[in-house]
Amino acid sequence: MKSTIKPWKRTSEKEVIKNRVFSVNEFRAEHHEKSGTFVCIHCPDWTNVIAQTEEGEIIVVYQYRHGQDRITCEIPGGVIDQGEEPLHAAKRELKEETGYESNEWEYLGKTAVNPAIMSNSTHLFYAKNCKKTSHQELDEHEDIEVTLISELEFLDKVISEEIDHSLILAGISKWLLKTKR
Amino acid sequence: MKSTIKPWKRTSEKEVIKNRVFSVNEFRAEHHEKSGTFVCIHCPDWTNVIAQTEEGEIIVVYQYRHGQDRITCEIPGGVIDQGEEPLHAAKRELKEETGYESNEWEYLGKTAVNPAIMSNSTHLFYAKNCKKTSHQELDEHEDIEVTLISELEFLDKVISEEIDHSLILAGISKWLLKTKR
Repeated sequence: MKSTIKPWKRTSEKEVIKNRVFSVNEFRAEHHEKSGTFVCIHCPDWTNVIAQTEEGEIIVVYQYRHGQDRITCEIPGGVIDQGEEPLHAAKRELKEETGYESNEWEYLGKTAVNPAIMSNSTHLFYAKNCKKTSHQELDEHEDIEVTLISELEFLDKVISEEIDHSLILAGISKWLLKTKR
Repeated sequence: MKSTIKPWKRTSEKEVIKNRVFSVNEFRAEHHEKSGTFVCIHCPDWTNVIAQTEEGEIIVVYQYRHGQDRITCEIPGGVIDQGEEPLHAAKRELKEETGYESNEWEYLGKTAVNPAIMSNSTHLFYAKNCKKTSHQELDEHEDIEVTLISELEFLDKVISEEIDHSLILAGISKWLLKTKR
């Protein structure tokens, strides 16, 4: 990092809201002669999995999403529990949401969800040769439909924006650069 | 969309916090026999630009980001003003943050920032043959360092995670699929 930009210094901070998904902190920060009030959203880290079956198909999940009040097409993923290893969470979410498991996991890396206003990161995985070993085990409010599609259909759904969740697209950029280049 | 998943129905909603960056709504929603309380973060839409000079170099910006309390390497972008066209905002942000302009804009599409808990989207653009036409015109709290790097260095920074902002990686996935496939 060759940047000459200098960080700001936080001088006071307070939590202004907390719910089961996130908390919001408001804080004062200073930088040379400047100062201001800023906000930050705190969430646990998340994980997403590009999961591919032995036949080469990608596992996608349809679910209702409250933030945009619509059904989305996504890849499996979810919240990493406190103290849980990202890989453990990825394996758990894949199994719970789809009933599939894999013995071949590749870590694609992590992405800062939104470093401007959020503190958390998402850990991205690629699971190969997935096998269906069980039924779904969904959380109380989850209702998830699992579908298998070819790699070509998967990328076409990105182009057509049926798959449009930024954290999934972030994973796809790493997957393309690490496995397809 | 062939999913059989059905949307939830919002029954009551209230704003629980509002600041200059986002507001948070809490709401009740129902789905068949289930019901629950959920939260959603509302922000304006945002825009990001993969900007390439006449010499083929990508324009990256280093800046301090309060959410993760660190300096990041990003591409130009920002908030789309109310009533502003996404392309206008992209051109404005590129010029303000870097002093560069382009006459060749390609729309890479939009990405849902986080449909689970956020309502907004980011509009992604590719600006070719950018020329430096002016100085930066930064907002009060902005301090941005502009650097030009080759396409290869740009993609290497994604692999090395020096560039790790999920919305930028989302744009890169579309850019790779639309211009490099």
